[in-house]
Amino acid sequence: MKVAFAQINPIVGDLIGNTKKILDIITLNSKNCDIIIFPEMVLTGYPAQDLLLEAQFIKFAQNQLNEIADSVKYCIVILGTIRYQDNMLFNTAAVIENRQIIRYVDKVFLPTYDIFDEDRYFHSAIQIEPVNIEINGEKINIGVHICEDLWDSKYDINVLQNLVEKGANLFINLSASPFSLNRLEDRIEIVKTKVNQYKKPFIYCNLVGGQDELVFDGQSFGINSKGDLIHVCASFKESFEIIDLKNENKAKLISMPENEQLFSAISLGLKDYFYKTGHQKAVLGLSGGIDSALTCAIAVKSLGSKNVHGFALPSKFSSKHSINDAEKLAKNFGINFSKISINNIHSQFLDSLSNDIDVRTSSVAMENLQARIRGNMLMTISNQINALLLNTSNKTEIALGYSTLYGDMCGAIGVISDLNKSQVYSLSKWINNHFGEELIPVNSITKQPSAELKPNQTDPFNYDEISPMVESVIIENKHLHQLVKQGYDKDDVLDVLRKIRLSEFKRKQAPIGIRVSLKSFGSGRRYPIINQFKG
Amino acid sequence: MKVAFAQINPIVGDLIGNTKKILDIITLNSKNCDIIIFPEMVLTGYPAQDLLLEAQFIKFAQNQLNEIADSVKYCIVILGTIRYQDNMLFNTAAVIENRQIIRYVDKVFLPTYDIFDEDRYFHSAIQIEPVNIEINGEKINIGVHICEDLWDSKYDINVLQNLVEKGANLFINLSASPFSLNRLEDRIEIVKTKVNQYKKPFIYCNLVGGQDELVFDGQSFGINSKGDLIHVCASFKESFEIIDLKNENKAKLISMPENEQLFSAISLGLKDYFYKTGHQKAVLGLSGGIDSALTCAIAVKSLGSKNVHGFALPSKFSSKHSINDAEKLAKNFGINFSKISINNIHSQFLDSLSNDIDVRTSSVAMENLQARIRGNMLMTISNQINALLLNTSNKTEIALGYSTLYGDMCGAIGVISDLNKSQVYSLSKWINNHFGEELIPVNSITKQPSAELKPNQTDPFNYDEISPMVESVIIENKHLHQLVKQGYDKDDVLDVLRKIRLSEFKRKQAPIGIRVSLKSFGSGRRYPIINQFKG
Repeated sequence: MKVAFAQINPIVGDLIGNTKKILDIITLNSKNCDIIIFPEMVLTGYPAQDLLLEAQFIKFAQNQLNEIADSVKYCIVILGTIRYQDNMLFNTAAVIENRQIIRYVDKVFLPTYDIFDEDRYFHSAIQIEPVNIEINGEKINIGVHICEDLWDSKYDINVLQNLVEKGANLFINLSASPFSLNRLEDRIEIVKTKVNQYKKPFIYCNLVGGQDELVFDGQSFGINSKGDLIHVCASFKESFEIIDLKNENKAKLISMPENEQLFSAISLGLKDYFYKTGHQKAVLGLSGGIDSALTCAIAVKSLGSKNVHGFALPSKFSSKHSINDAEKLAKNFGINFSKISINNIHSQFLDSLSNDIDVRTSSVAMENLQARIRGNMLMTISNQINALLLNTSNKTEIALGYSTLYGDMCGAIGVISDLNKSQVYSLSKWINNHFGEELIPVNSITKQPSAELKPNQTDPFNYDEISPMVESVIIENKHLHQLVKQGYDKDDVLDVLRKIRLSEFKRKQAPIGIRVSLKSFGSGRRYPIINQFKG
Repeated sequence: MKVAFAQINPIVGDLIGNTKKILDIITLNSKNCDIIIFPEMVLTGYPAQDLLLEAQFIKFAQNQLNEIADSVKYCIVILGTIRYQDNMLFNTAAVIENRQIIRYVDKVFLPTYDIFDEDRYFHSAIQIEPVNIEINGEKINIGVHICEDLWDSKYDINVLQNLVEKGANLFINLSASPFSLNRLEDRIEIVKTKVNQYKKPFIYCNLVGGQDELVFDGQSFGINSKGDLIHVCASFKESFEIIDLKNENKAKLISMPENEQLFSAISLGLKDYFYKTGHQKAVLGLSGGIDSALTCAIAVKSLGSKNVHGFALPSKFSSKHSINDAEKLAKNFGINFSKISINNIHSQFLDSLSNDIDVRTSSVAMENLQARIRGNMLMTISNQINALLLNTSNKTEIALGYSTLYGDMCGAIGVISDLNKSQVYSLSKWINNHFGEELIPVNSITKQPSAELKPNQTDPFNYDEISPMVESVIIENKHLHQLVKQGYDKDDVLDVLRKIRLSEFKRKQAPIGIRVSLKSFGSGRRYPIINQFKG
């Protein structure tokens, strides 16, 4: 029995384009396999968010599904979409055979945590029932289910158990499971647990592609009834792959190193953000520091060097090595590069403002001013050449609010905003290693980080200590007592917690950033600005 | 039987401060009444968002509740908070008598739409049961329930029916119901329907105060078993009011005019944002136009004229009347005012950028540049004098993306961001009328709106037509066919839909804005940036 993974990359809302993509696959392959499986909500794209509240969108999706169904002649197609019935919207898998939608299998568990909001839109499945089909004369009872229905430990229904009790002898899971570090291992582990329990083969088909802050990594896979991995599809790209369940081979999971995972995920997220919003060119500021260097490296690998425009924007506080390192980086990557001093503009600002405020004493306001001049220059250039500005902030500084709103916080998308400072260093070294050259100047990696907004300034953090502490707070929700118990100094922890809390107003206006961890800033972390909980 | 509305204004997260506020009321009044009712989640503040995922927060709240309970000696206290049991978090009402928490009544319906995310945090009540108490020898069965549990039409359980069947003879509803235009009438109407059905008196106690984008309007009320309104508490402010259910009087609902509602709601939202984040001073740019004039008026009435700093920032494209109108406005309101030309800075930017981009031809980039210079100046001043910048964008232009990111979109909070352009005019006229003076210069109201970013520019919209069309799209989710049927030109509608869709990236980085409609931009409207649904 030949089962195909149609691991494709739809665009949210593009019902016509997605239909075409789906139809192309069906037309080309339906004679070569028995079942073609598409991921969760592949027709609408995922997450479609408040488009799911639009009657017109729901109706349009139904029409497109009917069009797709009409083209299915030679095999069975199982495809994720939405359906509306009796005032209820379902996240559903349509099972199509011989031009007919023979069944809808609705999602039972609606994730409503982290970045997920499915209770906002969907009604939970009313029944759990396998799908009976016949392939080459053999009756098969498929336990079709959707994404979260597999992860049943935190719910009080057991979907797979239910399916088995009703006769399922093959599991098929349609997923839109976003990437985070080592997520594939988690998925394989839970599927193996289920297979060991029920002794049925399991096909897991995942979405691929970038959608705003999220990246779907694909890596669909199959596991036989003995619990052996029999196939893993391509990672971070579209792929159509057929396996024969009657004649399977064992597959070996080759774990991707963490830095390669991060690099691949961010590259795909960035590439898709540009492609899916219709942009080619990127602009970024190059400070000579590590954050902008890494952002530049990823941009070049995702968008091509000719599409990347780097600008060094030195001030009177910029050191010589900053400009040199930026220049060297640009040369190494072969990008468009220009250097524009902000000195004259800066002086003119001070002059124009001097009647109203004190512009002579060093202050946060005077530091921010410079960052905002740079933000304005980069945005003006971006607007003029129809490019998108890349934001270069890392997760540690975003957490601590060590950034200027409308200054270095400008940008269409945060490229490394879910990498903490330690990961920034690690990934930078990996890039130099992986591509076999010193693409990112070693000086950018080894020198002391500095914003260079006043004389002799360096970042007021010990990143080796603070970067993991911040991650513990953001990802694991660790509180004061736990962190102190772990050995951190109480005052240090209190200071970090305070900084995180008081910088929420900045993050509310931050660009979206590509999510690669279990908890990134963005829609998965919802804190009030007015918040007087001091722990 | 004396029942008290403790309609108070807590601060989200401020468990210590909120406890003190609650204790002060109990200490002062518990001898004068039989029951004191506090609103939903008054102890934690509402919405507490992801604070509800912190173990430390939940534990702290429980401790504070115990402290409060310990002080209750002379009357019964019913108070909204949270409670954690068996790995489930509940939105609950604690009923306290004689230093004991005698019952928790958990919320059944967890709103998860618009701005609400309660399924993200809470578990639904496991049982529905009235609370038996005795007051002056009389046994009373109170149907305590929380906010949404009253609005049961879209759910498949009927909470009030359940309570009545189990003997409830008095309803008490604890709410955190955010303001939107004429919301009070909706609340009274549904309560009257329920009272007419069950013939039981009804006490509705609502939260008051501003929390980020939300405003809670208070206006708690009571209705007797015949369906007569017997009391309405103060609107838009804290209030402690006692009614005697054995000796009640009819009350008359004096409907507040819409403009007064809007003015009151926004003023409270703005005042609380400043107070609760620890700020006094506000900065804003005064263009001479209607949006900044109205924002200034509201700021003065909320924060006091001495705390408001207005800046006219003319360029070479600014008309004389712009500066005059701004100056006049500032004088009328008695605020701090200064005029700073952006011309020199603007020229310096053009000069510095001229090697890299075309700065001579008129373009969107060149227009945005000016708005961003102003944004930078206002932010520098704000940072330097420790003030918050007020954002002056209206809902219509935010919808259409007729604004500059990091330019006129700067600010800590959008004051009029949920007022469409028609409402902006209407409220401005109301202010002049209400305060009996031409506070807002008539010229700002009557002149043609213009961004003045190039010669002879005026806003490219017929606001009389486009402002209600945009509202229909945003609030009612109307689509192309419906709007065309209503008489709008198809191309106009398509253009508006396109503009709304393509400007999502700007709104993702917009400041929060005070919500006064049923659907504002902000957390209640969640659209993807990558969105190719063209209707």
